Amino acid sequence: MGTYTVSNAQNLRICVVMVGLPARGKSFISQKIVRYLSWLSFKAKSFNVGGYRRKGAPRPSADFFDYSNAEAYKIREQAVKEAVEDMMKWFEEEEGCVAILDATNSTRVRRNWILKLCRENCIEPMFLESWCDDEDVVLRNIADVKNSSPDYEGVDSEAATSDFLERINKYKEVYQPLQDDIDKDLTFVRLINVAQQVVINRIETYLESRIVFYVMNLHIKPRYIWLSRHGESIYNIEKKIGGDSSLSPRGLKYAAKLKEMVKESAGDRDLTVWTSTLIRTQETAQYLPYKQLQWKALDELDAGVCDGMTYEEIEEKYPEDFKARDEDKYEYRYRGGESYRDVVIRLEPIIMELERQENILIITHQAVLRCIYAYFMNVPQEESPWMSIPLHTLIRLEPRAYGTKVKKIKADIPAVSTYKERGTSQVGETYDEKRKSLHILNSTSD
Amino acid sequence: MGTYTVSNAQNLRICVVMVGLPARGKSFISQKIVRYLSWLSFKAKSFNVGGYRRKGAPRPSADFFDYSNAEAYKIREQAVKEAVEDMMKWFEEEEGCVAILDATNSTRVRRNWILKLCRENCIEPMFLESWCDDEDVVLRNIADVKNSSPDYEGVDSEAATSDFLERINKYKEVYQPLQDDIDKDLTFVRLINVAQQVVINRIETYLESRIVFYVMNLHIKPRYIWLSRHGESIYNIEKKIGGDSSLSPRGLKYAAKLKEMVKESAGDRDLTVWTSTLIRTQETAQYLPYKQLQWKALDELDAGVCDGMTYEEIEEKYPEDFKARDEDKYEYRYRGGESYRDVVIRLEPIIMELERQENILIITHQAVLRCIYAYFMNVPQEESPWMSIPLHTLIRLEPRAYGTKVKKIKADIPAVSTYKERGTSQVGETYDEKRKSLHILNSTSD
Repeated sequence: MGTYTVSNAQNLRICVVMVGLPARGKSFISQKIVRYLSWLSFKAKSFNVGGYRRKGAPRPSADFFDYSNAEAYKIREQAVKEAVEDMMKWFEEEEGCVAILDATNSTRVRRNWILKLCRENCIEPMFLESWCDDEDVVLRNIADVKNSSPDYEGVDSEAATSDFLERINKYKEVYQPLQDDIDKDLTFVRLINVAQQVVINRIETYLESRIVFYVMNLHIKPRYIWLSRHGESIYNIEKKIGGDSSLSPRGLKYAAKLKEMVKESAGDRDLTVWTSTLIRTQETAQYLPYKQLQWKALDELDAGVCDGMTYEEIEEKYPEDFKARDEDKYEYRYRGGESYRDVVIRLEPIIMELERQENILIITHQAVLRCIYAYFMNVPQEESPWMSIPLHTLIRLEPRAYGTKVKKIKADIPAVSTYKERGTSQVGETYDEKRKSLHILNSTSD
Repeated sequence: MGTYTVSNAQNLRICVVMVGLPARGKSFISQKIVRYLSWLSFKAKSFNVGGYRRKGAPRPSADFFDYSNAEAYKIREQAVKEAVEDMMKWFEEEEGCVAILDATNSTRVRRNWILKLCRENCIEPMFLESWCDDEDVVLRNIADVKNSSPDYEGVDSEAATSDFLERINKYKEVYQPLQDDIDKDLTFVRLINVAQQVVINRIETYLESRIVFYVMNLHIKPRYIWLSRHGESIYNIEKKIGGDSSLSPRGLKYAAKLKEMVKESAGDRDLTVWTSTLIRTQETAQYLPYKQLQWKALDELDAGVCDGMTYEEIEEKYPEDFKARDEDKYEYRYRGGESYRDVVIRLEPIIMELERQENILIITHQAVLRCIYAYFMNVPQEESPWMSIPLHTLIRLEPRAYGTKVKKIKADIPAVSTYKERGTSQVGETYDEKRKSLHILNSTSD
């Protein structure tokens, strides 16, 4: 493609080799990187060696991880070999760009073996160590692991914790952290106590530097992110897209109600409101008693020459464009305007800043909200432009170690539907909410 | 303002305290940060203690920097005090945002003194150490310093080098680098051998993380950046702004000639061509035998509802907007379009990537080129939207340690002028090239 800020123009192949004891957030970081890169259209995949190991040893006790246990060691060797083989295949057959080898990779011998394999296959290895001696963080991670790992399914909680601590001790016996002197020729990043300190060595490519900047900005404090479209606008009623119109009377009602809804959802938490620079988002935010910030990057997808038209007018005036957009809505760029891909690129700093921040309420527009939602919920590109995100609905995201919890709160204030199905220029009337909201409803977990 | 990606919404005050022996690129880094932040509309200023010291000791020999030289020490103490006083005044009176204290700040005692002052004045201190044991880099820096520092004006080159080396040794006797253990509670960044390794500790605010990411991406390899507008387009001839028209016959001639011009200027150097996604830049690049990359972020400033109009039409149809734009061209945002400020924000990733890259030729549009040029040449915001950057002219920038050398190469192919003077809707005819190109001509140094 080569058209975008973040493009893999050089056909780079990067293997992020995770390093760290168990319960250091390696899988969390791996999954975040994959989600971030995928959202930016880089082909990325995490290879979790634990998953491969479970085939040979589904629920091993701590003894299994003793390095003197020869039989177990063989099974573990086999697991890492299979993971690396699959990774190489993925690079070759699926033109992968960034693979994450999610394992402890505790010893220098193991890391040198991976290094050699990478070099033989024209893959840039980047070691990413998560090092942590903050007991609170480790214990929180242990709680996450024992609740989510298949290794401890159905095991009594206390027993699981104690076994897991023992397992960590087995690893500690052989663990060799990355070292400035011995490893000085490697490309590596050390995250110390959740990025309180970060050591970065020999980062050379743009993509590596982006990954580093991203992981530097991650935090694990509990928080909420609320998303809402602006209230119903005059243009919404007139079925026009784009523009900069004011809210309809029903839209204004939503603005008033939003204050209560947010108050109820947020409780005493402080939060900051982010809006776009367009009137309808600012009118929607007008009653909210929180700090507000406007971002040009949150403005609606620019429809270029079609701005201010109805879909029917677009179909009549630009029938080929209309068809092309239906065929590939993610890539289609309005004449003189933007594509969903363009919007994702300009949202990247917003996502980066969202990762850094704590409680944020974003009031923005349909296409922009789809892109932000797709990032947090890992929605594939083909689907995200077709997601239904109805008006007058507050969405609350709760980022967790493994995925994002989402809650949808309806305002119970009627609004037109602005959802346009593929292959029609009709909006709203033909709209089957149950089916179209599937994506959101499915992921609602409380 | 609060409308932009990078806004100082929290009224942060940051003092970047440089740390490092002489000839470690501290002033280079300081000036780069100031230029970058100013371009992004953050109020930033560097306070160079050497400059203050020169008032009391204009051209001292190495002995002056001996820590046992009590009289000299007093002068040096006085210099740092004056610099810090001015800095505090600047924070207060001019609502400064990021100050750089550009000095060696070699000892922990000195740094603790600064730390205390910062805390008393609600300023976040961020220590930025440039540490280097790569002799080649140090020698290159020494050459830069002795050529540019007033301390060695008129001094024989060899004598200057030897004196400067001796001066560095005096500093080495007392120098205490930042240390992970002792300084673990400070916010600091250590750049080791020009960011080959970077250690980042307790970075907490967004702005700090941006500064860190920026300095991580700096390099000092010699290279060129070429800038050119697209060749004359059909719209240029019709005096229309925006659009996506093709080149005129004269524009196509420029495209053909550009190949020779670049070849002559670049010699054997390899380079990459960056264009926008618009037809006229791609047609201009069509004969260039180099790798090409398209960036949406390089598209022309979006004139919104005025896209495709002549200035005369805009003046007639939107007289108030026309006037408002003339009054504050940097801030004026076209209805449904962009301001210069908006363009700067979307160009930020381009600038970041440009800092990382080596030889790059950018073919883009008038407003975008003004913004990029303003970054490299430190052109103030009030002036940059009014700079003349004529068609059919190749600009070659050569980033140096202290500033950027610029060379302007004319293609000698006639083109309309697209320059619009303040207070008129006329383009071209009234154009006084000598006066309008002043900014470029003044900075041409070879």
